[in-house]
Order: sequence, then structure tokens, then C-alpha cells
Amino acid sequence: MELFNYFRSSASYRVRIALALKGLDYDYRAIHLLKQEQHSEAYADLSAARLVPLLRDGDAVLSQSLAIMEYLEETHPEPPLLPADALGRARVRSLALDIACEIHPLNNPRVLRYLVRELGVSDDNKDRWYRHWVETGLEVVERRLVNEAGTGSFCHGEQATLADCTLVPQIFNARRFDCKLDHVPTVMRIFEHCMAQPAFANTQPAACPDAE
Amino acid sequence: MELFNYFRSSASYRVRIALALKGLDYDYRAIHLLKQEQHSEAYADLSAARLVPLLRDGDAVLSQSLAIMEYLEETHPEPPLLPADALGRARVRSLALDIACEIHPLNNPRVLRYLVRELGVSDDNKDRWYRHWVETGLEVVERRLVNEAGTGSFCHGEQATLADCTLVPQIFNARRFDCKLDHVPTVMRIFEHCMAQPAFANTQPAACPDAE
Repeated sequence: MELFNYFRSSASYRVRIALALKGLDYDYRAIHLLKQEQHSEAYADLSAARLVPLLRDGDAVLSQSLAIMEYLEETHPEPPLLPADALGRARVRSLALDIACEIHPLNNPRVLRYLVRELGVSDDNKDRWYRHWVETGLEVVERRLVNEAGTGSFCHGEQATLADCTLVPQIFNARRFDCKLDHVPTVMRIFEHCMAQPAFANTQPAACPDAE
Repeated sequence: MELFNYFRSSASYRVRIALALKGLDYDYRAIHLLKQEQHSEAYADLSAARLVPLLRDGDAVLSQSLAIMEYLEETHPEPPLLPADALGRARVRSLALDIACEIHPLNNPRVLRYLVRELGVSDDNKDRWYRHWVETGLEVVERRLVNEAGTGSFCHGEQATLADCTLVPQIFNARRFDCKLDHVPTVMRIFEHCMAQPAFANTQPAACPDAE
């Protein structure tokens, strides 16, 4: 397998964690987003959306980090990244989507670029926007982790799931943009627990071959 | 089952379609987003995110439309809304996520409100923002539908899937905001095919009990 990704892309990091948790080997293909390498002709042939990550498995090319992780789960079921029961699976998926749909899309580079270049938003206001969605979005996740019975050492029970694969990269982004995090102690307790596991630590942005 | 939703919410409409495709009965609970009913105390007890849709199934409360649809798929497998093969499933999920992560989050009411009220973006620029993400996002979906072998009368083959459940509501939003759609003829061909099916037509916003 080949993973086309970027060290700082949090969607890429999600997939790196999932691959590591499942003990799967892959070739790391760096696509430098700030150098706009995703718009190169060679990459555009692979990616309709010009986004990372992209997983090539034989002839197949897969996009969208959550769909890639579900594919890995179906093709390499051990260790499982989703619980066995339908309600548990729904909980894990919805936690992942609370981040992947409610926080991350508002803060990716092309969105920030559009705010500044097309709408004339100041850099200060752009940063305020970034922090607003991270801080309020993580507050929702915190409320769920505190109130829902499924929470354990990880987001759901005692094994890492797709929810943890999605949460941890979001915290890296939050720190990079100086977001407040002291209002989400349960999130941070789970983050620290994850970062003590090699699958999370060894795939973090700073450990990537293209890290700067 | 009870579905807490709003006639105009496209994430709600996704779940209404999935329930209809599976022939499942439910009680319709209207939550009026523009009247801020999602922030009422009673609803906040159910929804950590104060978002629709929410599905109550017995004692369980499920959030996030894509996670709800996956739950329905697991608990009521017939008719299937995902193909049987892992690659087909990944394709359907990634098409759904191309809409649910790359288009819809940028255009939901609280985001538009923040642009105008907090960042001082003009109404004209807010509409331009809206159309930009819809038009460029659907262009990606169009490119995939044209180039990928899986496309049939529906997004994937000859049966409705989660991808169609996600695509159709996005077109309703696009039309409401006068987005250009003539650049995505395959998307629109599939949209028309879906709208000829009762599960899509009978659950559309105008057919909802809370429609205005």
C-alpha cells in the first residue's frame, strides 16, 4: 500500500494512526500542500478532489480518511477499530464525525485562504474563526465523553477506535493555533493516553519523513 | 423510533431518505432551527451538539447523520444501502464524505451566522462563499461520477446507497441558494433518477410536516 499524505494534514494523520494500530506497512508518499503539490498533474490523475490523504491498495485508489479507515477495518479486521455492537459502533462513528464534519472542514488551508483572499477577512479574525470552531467543537466532544457511559481510557472503552484516530490529530491542530484546551480535560486525558501508545506517537507530524 | 429533525436541514433529509428506503416507520419530531429550538433545555438534554438530526431508538439516542445511516444499515440490513464489496463500500462512503465533509459543513446556518455577525462579512459575500463551496465541491463529485467505473443510474450501480442519500439533499440546498448546476450534468442526472423514487420524493423538505 502507498499513502499519499502530508505530515501536517490531520486527515492524513488519522489514517497513519489506523495503519499503525493494525500493524500495516505502507510506502509514505509526501504531497506538500503548501507548495500546492496536490494540484500537480500527476496527483490530479489520482485525486479528483486534489486532497490528501489517498491510499493506493493494488489498483484501487481510496479517498476520504474516514472511508479509508472503514476500508482498513473491513479488509484487516484485527485489531478492531470499531466496537462489536451496533450502538457502540454508532457512538464511535458519531464522535469521529463530530470532529471530521463539525470542526476540521472549517479550518483546512483552502478554507482559511478563501476567507482571507476572497472575503478580505483579517489574519486576526481568521485565527479567531479557527479557534472558535476548535474550541466550541471540542466542547461538544468533551460533553459527550463526560456524560456517555461508553467512555474509558480511550474515547470508547479500553481500546483505540476510529474516534481516537480522529481526535488526536485535531489536538495537534488546536495546539498549533494556540486554541484553549483547559475547558476539555477529558479530551486531554484521552489525548495523553493515546500519545503514550506507539501507534499514535510514532506517526505524529514531527515523526514523518516530510516533517519540517 | 423517533427522528428529531428539521424539514430544511439537509443532514436530516439524508436520514429520512435512508429510513424510507428501508421501509422503517418513525415519529417525526420537528426542531425548528431558525427559532433556535435546538438550544431549548429539553433538546440540549438529548443532543450534546444541539444539532439535528437525532434518532431515538428505544433508550439509545444517536447523532451524526452518517453514523445514524450506518447504524440503520447494521440493524436493518435490507435493502442494503452499501454495496457488498469493501472497495465499493469505500467508494460509496467517500462520495458521501465528499459532500458531508467538504461541502455541507461550510454552509450550515451557524457557520453563515458567524461569518456575518462575527467577521462582518456582507450578505453578498456570504452568498458567494456558499455558492463557491457547493459549486466546487459538486464539481469534484461530478469528476468522480464521470471517471469512476462504479457509477450507474445511482451514484453506485443500480441501487440507492448512502451516497445518494447524501447527494440529493445537497442539491436541494444548492437550488435554494441559486448555485450553478449546469456544470455537473451527471450529478443532476442521478438526482433526477433519485427523485423519481418515492423514498426520495416523499421525504423531501416540502413534504415534511413542519414545512413552511
